[in-house]
Amino acid sequence: MPVLLPPRASDSFLDLALAGERAQATRLTLDLFAGGFPLPVLITDLLGAVQREVGARWHRAEIGVAEEHLVTGVSQATLGALAATVPHRPGRGTVVLACAEGDWHSLPAQLFAESLRAVGQGVLYLGASTPSEDVSRLLERRRPDALLVTCNLALSYPGVAGLADAAHRHGVPVLAGGRALNPARAVALGADAWAADVTSAANLLRSWRRTPPEVDPRPVELEAAAAALDARAPELGGVAYEALADRFPPMADYDRRQRARTYEDLVYIVRFLAAARLVDDEEGFTTFATWLEDLLVARGVPAAALVAGLEVLAPPVRDIDERSGALALSAVERIGCRAA
Amino acid sequence: MPVLLPPRASDSFLDLALAGERAQATRLTLDLFAGGFPLPVLITDLLGAVQREVGARWHRAEIGVAEEHLVTGVSQATLGALAATVPHRPGRGTVVLACAEGDWHSLPAQLFAESLRAVGQGVLYLGASTPSEDVSRLLERRRPDALLVTCNLALSYPGVAGLADAAHRHGVPVLAGGRALNPARAVALGADAWAADVTSAANLLRSWRRTPPEVDPRPVELEAAAAALDARAPELGGVAYEALADRFPPMADYDRRQRARTYEDLVYIVRFLAAARLVDDEEGFTTFATWLEDLLVARGVPAAALVAGLEVLAPPVRDIDERSGALALSAVERIGCRAA
Repeated sequence: MPVLLPPRASDSFLDLALAGERAQATRLTLDLFAGGFPLPVLITDLLGAVQREVGARWHRAEIGVAEEHLVTGVSQATLGALAATVPHRPGRGTVVLACAEGDWHSLPAQLFAESLRAVGQGVLYLGASTPSEDVSRLLERRRPDALLVTCNLALSYPGVAGLADAAHRHGVPVLAGGRALNPARAVALGADAWAADVTSAANLLRSWRRTPPEVDPRPVELEAAAAALDARAPELGGVAYEALADRFPPMADYDRRQRARTYEDLVYIVRFLAAARLVDDEEGFTTFATWLEDLLVARGVPAAALVAGLEVLAPPVRDIDERSGALALSAVERIGCRAA
Repeated sequence: MPVLLPPRASDSFLDLALAGERAQATRLTLDLFAGGFPLPVLITDLLGAVQREVGARWHRAEIGVAEEHLVTGVSQATLGALAATVPHRPGRGTVVLACAEGDWHSLPAQLFAESLRAVGQGVLYLGASTPSEDVSRLLERRRPDALLVTCNLALSYPGVAGLADAAHRHGVPVLAGGRALNPARAVALGADAWAADVTSAANLLRSWRRTPPEVDPRPVELEAAAAALDARAPELGGVAYEALADRFPPMADYDRRQRARTYEDLVYIVRFLAAARLVDDEEGFTTFATWLEDLLVARGVPAAALVAGLEVLAPPVRDIDERSGALALSAVERIGCRAA
């Protein structure tokens, strides 16, 4: 059984998807499957690689959101075609797999669901942004072995905690995964365990079927100041936006779209500060600030604009959460060093 | 070629999907296709019928959002499997198909895209909530024959107008469709035409390829008061929420979830008022109010609560847009008549 994809298989898929040649992209994938490549390899090293490359190109401003959507649609259709090709065997046990409320990036969850099914795990896949109370009612009725939550963006941390609480109310253990989590962050948000990949998730679920873990029915306690910061992000973004116009003169020439984008970025900065504090992991904000700096620079916005934004945000943020205010200022220093 | 599906095919699909038997639901569909049912019939009378039934059951509070997501995931995967089974023929021309920003219900657009491809139309499918400015850049680069916009919820009207403007800036004509539109509404939002179904859409696109329509590059002029009402809906919902607590005593016993839901409903009412005024079609609000009344009653909320909500909303709404205020009060009278 071949395990290494031909060089440039994912490049070919991506070129076809961007050209709108959906049928050919799917055909390429089904041919690889027919040629002996196992489903998990095609999911991780082909479709997964394509999505990572799309994200990277968007980050470098080489493609827009519309192209991202175009490729995602092709990948989703291909995944459906691929799944129907795999011989069906009834899955062992049942887990529910959901994205947190507000998380609309369902493809990683969908890839994960198919990978689990491929190793014989029964999965009820709910997909994008499902409200916690609705998941709660489903768990009450279906009594699955576990709730799986994927989280690829720190903005969804409060939603992950909400899903964990919903599961625990019904005695259902929670396994979390995804790029925005690690073991400590998952536990801070109420998950009972974290899995890096499908193999470890499947193994853990097997052990949970043998010996269900103890589940604490109490809601996870999130840092109150961080939760308040997240809730008040739109307001703080507005305050900072006004102050930024004084601090950063080029804003006077911004058009409507640039002004809207600037306000959005300020709100995101506050929400990523809150997210880092929710999981008590300041590293998360540092990573975000570097990512945002690169993203802005690729779009012609100088690092000085981000520095000014962080400086005007720091005082009102500090009034709600002192450590978040300090975190914003430490990012300023780091960006200053990089720029110098 | 059989054209009438076996009785209860869609019931069987839905039962399997709700049970999480994704593979079997897909198999059932692929077997019907192998048995000679054409793709458009399977899309409209099977997958489309399943989604309509899911919507109806959710409206009657028989299933929750989580079950809706479960079924949508199965339908999406099945659609991908089905599309890969259809022999590929290169499509004529290219159209871009998108949902308006804020519209996350992509499955109807996806079903429409596959139906168009089945009749030989080339489609670049963008799917859920794509920002207008990103669609604009894609249109500039790809120069399609047309932009197709699907709209199934009146809340997306401003987004439809935004997409129409984006297309017209690049001389691309706009064809709109979906349950929330009709010819007059589509034109009011800037579309150049409206199509009731795939056949009429394909015919129109064919005629546009022969004779491209004249496109007016100027942005569509939306009723300013209606746009203001939509923008201020969260604020008006907050004002009305405070007033409602006095007017409707049972609210004192509402839990946190019920209070959040009540506020959300008030905001939705304002946004549907604005939507009806944006397309100058008050009928749209009447339909919504009846639908909301039934939805609330199915969840144990008496019609009196909706009447009280409309009454407290009317004065602040009237301050922004007199006709919307009158529309809210006329709904009160109608609900009163129905309840009596």
